[in-house]
Amino acid sequence: MKLLVINPNISTDVTALIEREARRSTRPGTELSMATAPFGVAYIETRAEAQIGGYAAMQLAAERYADHDAVVVAAFGDPGLTALREILPIPVVGMTEAALVSACQQGGRFSVIAISQRIQAWYRETIAAYGFADRLASIRALDEPLAHIGRVQEDQGERLVALAERAVLDDGADVLILAGAPLAGLARDVAERLQVPALDGVTCALHQAQALVDLGTTAPSAGSFAAPPCKPCRGLPETLARLVGRQDLVNRT
Amino acid sequence: MKLLVINPNISTDVTALIEREARRSTRPGTELSMATAPFGVAYIETRAEAQIGGYAAMQLAAERYADHDAVVVAAFGDPGLTALREILPIPVVGMTEAALVSACQQGGRFSVIAISQRIQAWYRETIAAYGFADRLASIRALDEPLAHIGRVQEDQGERLVALAERAVLDDGADVLILAGAPLAGLARDVAERLQVPALDGVTCALHQAQALVDLGTTAPSAGSFAAPPCKPCRGLPETLARLVGRQDLVNRT
Amino acid sequence: MKLLVINPNISTDVTALIEREARRSTRPGTELSMATAPFGVAYIETRAEAQIGGYAAMQLAAERYADHDAVVVAAFGDPGLTALREILPIPVVGMTEAALVSACQQGGRFSVIAISQRIQAWYRETIAAYGFADRLASIRALDEPLAHIGRVQEDQGERLVALAERAVLDDGADVLILAGAPLAGLARDVAERLQVPALDGVTCALHQAQALVDLGTTAPSAGSFAAPPCKPCRGLPETLARLVGRQDLVNRT
Amino acid sequence: MKLLVINPNISTDVTALIEREARRSTRPGTELSMATAPFGVAYIETRAEAQIGGYAAMQLAAERYADHDAVVVAAFGDPGLTALREILPIPVVGMTEAALVSACQQGGRFSVIAISQRIQAWYRETIAAYGFADRLASIRALDEPLAHIGRVQEDQGERLVALAERAVLDDGADVLILAGAPLAGLARDVAERLQVPALDGVTCALHQAQALVDLGTTAPSAGSFAAPPCKPCRGLPETLARLVGRQDLVNRT
Amino acid sequence: MKLLVINPNISTDVTALIEREARRSTRPGTELSMATAPFGVAYIETRAEAQIGGYAAMQLAAERYADHDAVVVAAFGDPGLTALREILPIPVVGMTEAALVSACQQGGRFSVIAISQRIQAWYRETIAAYGFADRLASIRALDEPLAHIGRVQEDQGERLVALAERAVLDDGADVLILAGAPLAGLARDVAERLQVPALDGVTCALHQAQALVDLGTTAPSAGSFAAPPCKPCRGLPETLARLVGRQDLVNRT
Amino acid sequence: MKLLVINPNISTDVTALIEREARRSTRPGTELSMATAPFGVAYIETRAEAQIGGYAAMQLAAERYADHDAVVVAAFGDPGLTALREILPIPVVGMTEAALVSACQQGGRFSVIAISQRIQAWYRETIAAYGFADRLASIRALDEPLAHIGRVQEDQGERLVALAERAVLDDGADVLILAGAPLAGLARDVAERLQVPALDGVTCALHQAQALVDLGTTAPSAGSFAAPPCKPCRGLPETLARLVGRQDLVNRT
Repeated sequence: MKLLVINPNISTDVTALIEREARRSTRPGTELSMATAPFGVAYIETRAEAQIGGYAAMQLAAERYADHDAVVVAAFGDPGLTALREILPIPVVGMTEAALVSACQQGGRFSVIAISQRIQAWYRETIAAYGFADRLASIRALDEPLAHIGRVQEDQGERLVALAERAVLDDGADVLILAGAPLAGLARDVAERLQVPALDGVTCALHQAQALVDLGTTAPSAGSFAAPPCKPCRGLPETLARLVGRQDLVNRT
Repeated sequence: MKLLVINPNISTDVTALIEREARRSTRPGTELSMATAPFGVAYIETRAEAQIGGYAAMQLAAERYADHDAVVVAAFGDPGLTALREILPIPVVGMTEAALVSACQQGGRFSVIAISQRIQAWYRETIAAYGFADRLASIRALDEPLAHIGRVQEDQGERLVALAERAVLDDGADVLILAGAPLAGLARDVAERLQVPALDGVTCALHQAQALVDLGTTAPSAGSFAAPPCKPCRGLPETLARLVGRQDLVNRT
Repeated sequence: MKLLVINPNISTDVTALIEREARRSTRPGTELSMATAPFGVAYIETRAEAQIGGYAAMQLAAERYADHDAVVVAAFGDPGLTALREILPIPVVGMTEAALVSACQQGGRFSVIAISQRIQAWYRETIAAYGFADRLASIRALDEPLAHIGRVQEDQGERLVALAERAVLDDGADVLILAGAPLAGLARDVAERLQVPALDGVTCALHQAQALVDLGTTAPSAGSFAAPPCKPCRGLPETLARLVGRQDLVNRT
Repeated sequence: MKLLVINPNISTDVTALIEREARRSTRPGTELSMATAPFGVAYIETRAEAQIGGYAAMQLAAERYADHDAVVVAAFGDPGLTALREILPIPVVGMTEAALVSACQQGGRFSVIAISQRIQAWYRETIAAYGFADRLASIRALDEPLAHIGRVQEDQGERLVALAERAVLDDGADVLILAGAPLAGLARDVAERLQVPALDGVTCALHQAQALVDLGTTAPSAGSFAAPPCKPCRGLPETLARLVGRQDLVNRT
Repeated sequence: MKLLVINPNISTDVTALIEREARRSTRPGTELSMATAPFGVAYIETRAEAQIGGYAAMQLAAERYADHDAVVVAAFGDPGLTALREILPIPVVGMTEAALVSACQQGGRFSVIAISQRIQAWYRETIAAYGFADRLASIRALDEPLAHIGRVQEDQGERLVALAERAVLDDGADVLILAGAPLAGLARDVAERLQVPALDGVTCALHQAQALVDLGTTAPSAGSFAAPPCKPCRGLPETLARLVGRQDLVNRT
Repeated sequence: MKLLVINPNISTDVTALIEREARRSTRPGTELSMATAPFGVAYIETRAEAQIGGYAAMQLAAERYADHDAVVVAAFGDPGLTALREILPIPVVGMTEAALVSACQQGGRFSVIAISQRIQAWYRETIAAYGFADRLASIRALDEPLAHIGRVQEDQGERLVALAERAVLDDGADVLILAGAPLAGLARDVAERLQVPALDGVTCALHQAQALVDLGTTAPSAGSFAAPPCKPCRGLPETLARLVGRQDLVNRT
């Protein structure tokens, strides 16, 4: 099968981190295409940045999803995830959602370990929107500015492990989610030092994407995830306009 | 005071509807600037369309908010609302949120009357995200294709009133919200025929915007609605880049 | 427009505080009538005191609402608010509810700063009854006996600011509500020292009351906020009996 | 033991109904004192009427609780219940709360059968305030004006049974609560015709009151149900002033 | 009346503790039969142990319920409670549920004091399953291995009281539940040292069981607590098979 | 990898159905062992039957899990799932939980199509316990006695499809779950006739089990899913006693 992995941000070094971990999480016969947002920010901490990243993900996906079996949105917080799920005829998986469903199958409550204080509100709202608020034991986050987003693991690895340990001991976490694409691969590296399962969003997303492709359900023609109804549109990239506005109506306001 | 009213969609006739109702809802001395999305769809029914409209609203707001005292996002579902609230130093009001808080101050539970079946899921999720799910008595919606979005009121007015009456009688609504910018002004026209208060999102948004300007709080420098932290960005319109990426870092990936 | 502002407690010096702040929150052309409860307690900290204050507010409102456009219940916790909303044909606004809806339009989660430990349970229950429990970051309260309820701001101002700062830093509050009529005006005085918007219940209530009058909806004739059905009553002040029992049936058990 | 049963309404014939059922629900050695509100309405359907009834209950209880072991508030919706629980040093039981906890020990979800359409909103809010909203299968209510509140059972008995049957069949109720003091005794009469346990609020309240007296816990000196802190009061009946304002401070504003 | 009290665990010394407290909580004329699980573990801390204890309780109850008026499941967490309630034609009461409903009638929020760290997750899930999560102020637990389950009170009494005091002071508990059959009787011993009511699950269960027998409702023939529908079964003790599979079908796969 | 699939019921023909569908859902290299409960009932509709099936699943799993990489509990409602997850050092997957997490990744709200009226309460409670109650659009169920549990699909296939169609049209389901092991394989057969994705619990469980094995997390040594603490036990099958009571303490009350 062929998976399209989208980094909704502009950081090519984060895309490289994602790819490295993604390749460790594929089965024989699974091919990956990587895509990096052509516009946006270096990494997403806020609702505003998620709004931008979500639209960038839509453009990327519209342009490149053809010939793929599923799409992975590879930023924690899943910018654009439900939007993509509506417009694409193939499964779309998000790092956060995939990590949450993996966590729930291994424990009662989970904690999220995050890279900045500011990012917590957005994570909390994302988790609540999925309906998992009651299973969130805590979010614990670094509280220093990040020198370079592509080197967070090297620079802050020990601090992140310490936060994870506190989440288990003090917050009652049965499972840990090391959150954010910049931490891709860290869970694998530190798993042995932690007393409960530590999940990586990229890894979980890749496994869930492959499971959904195996599941083989077809795109809905009813319900709220059927393709959006035809309507006039304007100023959208043509590939996106075809998915949102329906070809025959594109640019016909 | 001066308010910027943004239609996150491309329909200039809907913008005209919004403006007409908005002008009826301003106090002496309040000036309005109207803005229509330069790209996007005719009206928003889905999560995908909201993602596009939210980004369009960000671009419009970034370009035009200067010299205004508050911004109104004039599409039901409030695309981009919390994103705008983070990046702008002035109050930002959404039609849905404003209608909900107005409804809650007049009754226990409310119903939403909507223009299409498909639009219900997005409304339901918006209302839940604000935490008002328990006060939602029902959403009732038209179930026919809309011939022209700018003439829904004329074409479907009686059907909408009938849905509203059912919501009061069968669903226990204390307040009705006639939802969607294409219905701007309808509540005013049919209020006397309904047994409970009927709210118009545009009207509510204008009143809440003026109230928030009067309230006079200043933009936060902490918490999750302070301006986003500095970080590299690329490919954004310059006015938006200044708000998201901070001027000194713009385009400096 | 003309607003009736009710202090459901017997403290005339608190009424004076409320009036001072209320006058700063009215628009040109808005007139205020102040009313102080003829019976009850000095300030409300408990469910029992709220039950008494709520009934006092009903009596005051029944006697004096005529010729007014809206009523404001000026005690945090909103004693009698929904009762008044049922029996009066004009909008009724509560300090707590008004502060909550104002907070929600400026941030994700809010904290309440309160004047006593005991008062917290009642506040928590009020906020939960409105459906805002999930947006409450924390309640932080003074823990010393109050020497004089009319001088809390002078005596405890610095302690209250310190509690507010902790709520932002430790509890993740995006907005602060300085709660309780005895704190009327404090938010205005300390706003510049706080990093997030600080709301005053009186101010918010006045702005919401004016907005609701502008909104101009009419009293419901159906739903759970229509006037109570006719039924026999006894021993009520005549003005109240007219609203609750319907004139023709009054005192006709 | 000795129980004080308070009817927070003015209807002496409803008090008689309550007493009849209450006497069937006492154990040997339990004595009852009955009390009827000196002011208020015939029966409570609204938040406004509950506010009045709650204050009447406080006055009655303050005056008469001495020498009793527990107090029962005998109106569905429990007007004044938590207020009484704060000010009295003995257990206070409410018809609704007692019925709910009895229902929860016999099934998963319950339905409430009520005497009027209007009463439903108040019941729903009461049940939600106790935290039982998720276990409420439905409220079903008569939809005709009541000719005489003391003869509802005779006049509407069959209709009430039919509503109860629908609740079991269509709403999934495991337990039925025949709600409202005017229905006192009905559950006993129709139990054999219903397929699931049918509860009477008066019966449940009496049994819970006796159980709480047997339990023998003492009044709290901390927490939010300790007696209210001392504070000035005015205009209250002296017996109530002693409980709320503390004797030494009464009438000393 | 005659009550069957089941210890779903194998510890006969805990059964003795339960019996001692149970006998202090019965009225004249109430007889007790005690039963100890023939298989299982010494005390339940986990979901796995609860699954075993629940099945043991079913076997015991099936064998011995005849000639009794109600059954009490005497382990905190109520293993097997709803299962028993389905198959037995008499009331079944659980220690946890009985303590929770008793707590809710005496305060707003309660804390649970528990004998081990590990036991907390199971308690939390039990309380949430009953719908009481929002009223749980905290669970506080001992954090040392228990030398002997029958002597926890003697060994750890002071530590338990200290935890209880913290729950009142720091967590806002209006009521305390000293949880777990091994603590049977402790609440009675330490009540005077605590500032809020302290409940014992055994005591509460006995009082609720007697109240439910007095209530006298009959077993449902519809709803989800009617006896399970007939179906083939195999390998069950005959007394249990009669209740689950219906005699005529037993062992007829 | 090697998976142990447990039917917690005694019906070998249902085991055969499960196996057939399971084999269609495995990847090359995945081997299956099937196990049928040695005691219990033909299929689970009630809490009581789930309590029995859960204990049977524990016994089976304890005896046979060695040499397997994961265990699948193949009855809707997941009897014993969290218990097994505590005692086994390998991943344990449940049909219901796996179907729910698969549904949530394909839509907003889902409906469950079930084989009997009675089974609905147990399903509803299971779904709520996982925290998915807000995403449940409806449960729709057959309302006739089942002639033979192994032939439900043949006998009732059309009726089940009709229920599924109603769930999409009337209840707003984005995804359908055809629930219960006796329906294993049906979703595959009728998928093309339904407008939204239709999920089979067995299929989902197999895919999730394989994904969790691929994920490769290790068993926790802390948190509430670490192996239960050592304690005395008695009367358990030796394989189970080793997992619950720890070998050195087994049978040593």
